[in-house]
Amino acid sequence: MTKSEAGAFRVEFEEELLGNIVPFWEKYSPDREAGGYITCLDRDGSVFDTDKFLWMQGREIWCFSRLCRSFGPRPEWIEAARLGADFIRKFGRAEGGDYYFSVDRVGRPLVQPYNIFSDCFCAAGLAEYGRISGLAAAEAWATESALETWGRFQERKSNPKGMWTKQIAENRPQRAMAISMTQLWLSEVFEGLVPDTELETLVAESARNILTLHLDEGRRAVFERVFADGSRPQGMDGRLLSPGHALETLFLLLNAASRLGRLPEKEASRLLPAGWTPARICEAMLWTIERGWDKEFGGIYYYRDYENRPLDKLESDMKLWWVHVEALCAFLLAYRITGDERYEAWFRKVKDWTWGHFRDPGYGEWFGYLDRRGEPALTLKGGKWKGMFHIPRALMYLADICGQLEKEDSTLILPGRFC
Amino acid sequence: MTKSEAGAFRVEFEEELLGNIVPFWEKYSPDREAGGYITCLDRDGSVFDTDKFLWMQGREIWCFSRLCRSFGPRPEWIEAARLGADFIRKFGRAEGGDYYFSVDRVGRPLVQPYNIFSDCFCAAGLAEYGRISGLAAAEAWATESALETWGRFQERKSNPKGMWTKQIAENRPQRAMAISMTQLWLSEVFEGLVPDTELETLVAESARNILTLHLDEGRRAVFERVFADGSRPQGMDGRLLSPGHALETLFLLLNAASRLGRLPEKEASRLLPAGWTPARICEAMLWTIERGWDKEFGGIYYYRDYENRPLDKLESDMKLWWVHVEALCAFLLAYRITGDERYEAWFRKVKDWTWGHFRDPGYGEWFGYLDRRGEPALTLKGGKWKGMFHIPRALMYLADICGQLEKEDSTLILPGRFC
Repeated sequence: MTKSEAGAFRVEFEEELLGNIVPFWEKYSPDREAGGYITCLDRDGSVFDTDKFLWMQGREIWCFSRLCRSFGPRPEWIEAARLGADFIRKFGRAEGGDYYFSVDRVGRPLVQPYNIFSDCFCAAGLAEYGRISGLAAAEAWATESALETWGRFQERKSNPKGMWTKQIAENRPQRAMAISMTQLWLSEVFEGLVPDTELETLVAESARNILTLHLDEGRRAVFERVFADGSRPQGMDGRLLSPGHALETLFLLLNAASRLGRLPEKEASRLLPAGWTPARICEAMLWTIERGWDKEFGGIYYYRDYENRPLDKLESDMKLWWVHVEALCAFLLAYRITGDERYEAWFRKVKDWTWGHFRDPGYGEWFGYLDRRGEPALTLKGGKWKGMFHIPRALMYLADICGQLEKEDSTLILPGRFC
Repeated sequence: MTKSEAGAFRVEFEEELLGNIVPFWEKYSPDREAGGYITCLDRDGSVFDTDKFLWMQGREIWCFSRLCRSFGPRPEWIEAARLGADFIRKFGRAEGGDYYFSVDRVGRPLVQPYNIFSDCFCAAGLAEYGRISGLAAAEAWATESALETWGRFQERKSNPKGMWTKQIAENRPQRAMAISMTQLWLSEVFEGLVPDTELETLVAESARNILTLHLDEGRRAVFERVFADGSRPQGMDGRLLSPGHALETLFLLLNAASRLGRLPEKEASRLLPAGWTPARICEAMLWTIERGWDKEFGGIYYYRDYENRPLDKLESDMKLWWVHVEALCAFLLAYRITGDERYEAWFRKVKDWTWGHFRDPGYGEWFGYLDRRGEPALTLKGGKWKGMFHIPRALMYLADICGQLEKEDSTLILPGRFC
């Protein structure tokens, strides 16, 4: 990729973000009557449900706030972020401090705080909100609240569902990859709020879990569910592959290691288990996409089975928006780190398919849920699980990496420099 | 439909049952090493997971036992039923007596008894197992255990998930239709084991819930989720339609009312709210199929939104086996009751599409999960949710109704006779 190509991509990503994605959410999502955000938005932005899901509230607060960091604070972003922050401050938390899963339009709780990711996203939202320059004094509560929830996450993460746990772990103590992955992202969001040594410990912990338990070089696969000794449960759980989740995790791992590792006095290798280099980690992206890419219709499957046995997940063959934007981040960063053209080729291939199938030129923003052939299966722009998050987050990452490629003399980060 | 056509359908349904469906499960499902049944079976019957799900264990016990009632006891069916009954007797129940959701191959519990339908299906299985002639003396435990769980179901049904409930009902006390529906089927399974007066009370209770709360004649729709006053929650929950579930429920309601109502001294109308006749109930099947039928590709959608707003369920457009066989039961019974050819026409249309798309001539049995176009999306024959149940149960019902049509002078059940 030449510098000018990288520059053109940067411009395209920024225009998509600021010209297509952000305006849709600015226009349709803030609930100026009842506070917070409405995320159940039809193709044209009309509201089809007014319930408020704390994952989505936290993510949208984060997003409006994070835009201020990348592009400078704008009054409309600050106002939108505050609308969400005030809403979750008033209505988000149950007694005990954990965030509900959902509340109704006016904030009455609907679903108990069984889901630790509500905490993660609300904490991330308030951490970023508290960072908006000029607001710090008036909104110090946000940073404090974010740090309190950060602490609560550390307490809860070994038993995230608490009293709502239905799995009987004694008989099958399997571990999912999601906590390790989320911790990598949180370590970035909380940079500067939590001591670097603590963040590095958590990144190293996540890196160790992912690389020594979930990533299997012998089998060339990243498994979702494993035991603490790296072996896997029998049956479909043990064979489950989620290409989007694997690529997102590898991206966030490399991003966290490289970001923390870039500080002058540190080295990324300290954060990785012995023998692991970023280039070695990137290889896993290639195994993942080779299994995950649909050779007939294009796009990346939601789930695969390692032995191509049946999956019991109805959405396995569908093509989802977040899978594709996380894949773009993964391949572009891998190219930035290694200079290896295989990553650039996958970046371009995934980018073309993604832009050709998810974007909705009619009403703006992107479809989220395509069938295997790439036709929209659901027409919604937002709902219980899709909000203002993956696309803008990815576009900010992508524009940032392109900006680096534009300025660097070489795409290659030499081993001596990076690890 | 002529008598000879009805006879030909009866033969076809019985041959499908005894020649295609039952042999598949007899051959691949019983676990003669560890007991119980393996239900995660690939297209060719090979095992892809050995976990045991109590829904599926109870349903398969029920099915092998019920075959003995319809076709006379056969040693291989009795042996297969006993394999399941002994397994759930040993490993199925948690302290407190409720059935786990799943256990591993050798019976170690994996998922807590949060799901009341595990109890329903295991109780049904043991009730039918205890009824196999010639076994009654040795297997009296089965009937006793079934009755104990029947009692437990009555205690639990107003708060079915108990301590695992995540919904905060005070703020949105919505009711789902599933408990009412299951109770209608259980009232049939427990006939002769529980006093008729008790069964009639439960059928009347279910009929009242379904007809006065879920079925909306003004809007011509059967809604899945309603409040106790018949109004509906805002948003997607309140607009949710599940055509297969509605048809199954209407079928089981008519079947229960007609079965109990046919006893000489009783009348079905006693079991229905004032003013309701079977013919009036059947009308709702027509609204349901008109909304639920896919006019482009054929087949019945899994979910619809009453206002055609977005659905957040990824499987909404898929075509599922159980939806189609329950629809067949509904339309054939409606035709049997009313003689109205609109029901016969839908029966024939659904039957043709079903036979043309779900059956697997290559390896026997049926695919369960087709995409919108009718292509298999998942190749499995059984899993966590598909087992030996809906197809054989429906084929037994269908053969039975055809047998009645074969013998009757008229398909029409006159109002004076039925209600």
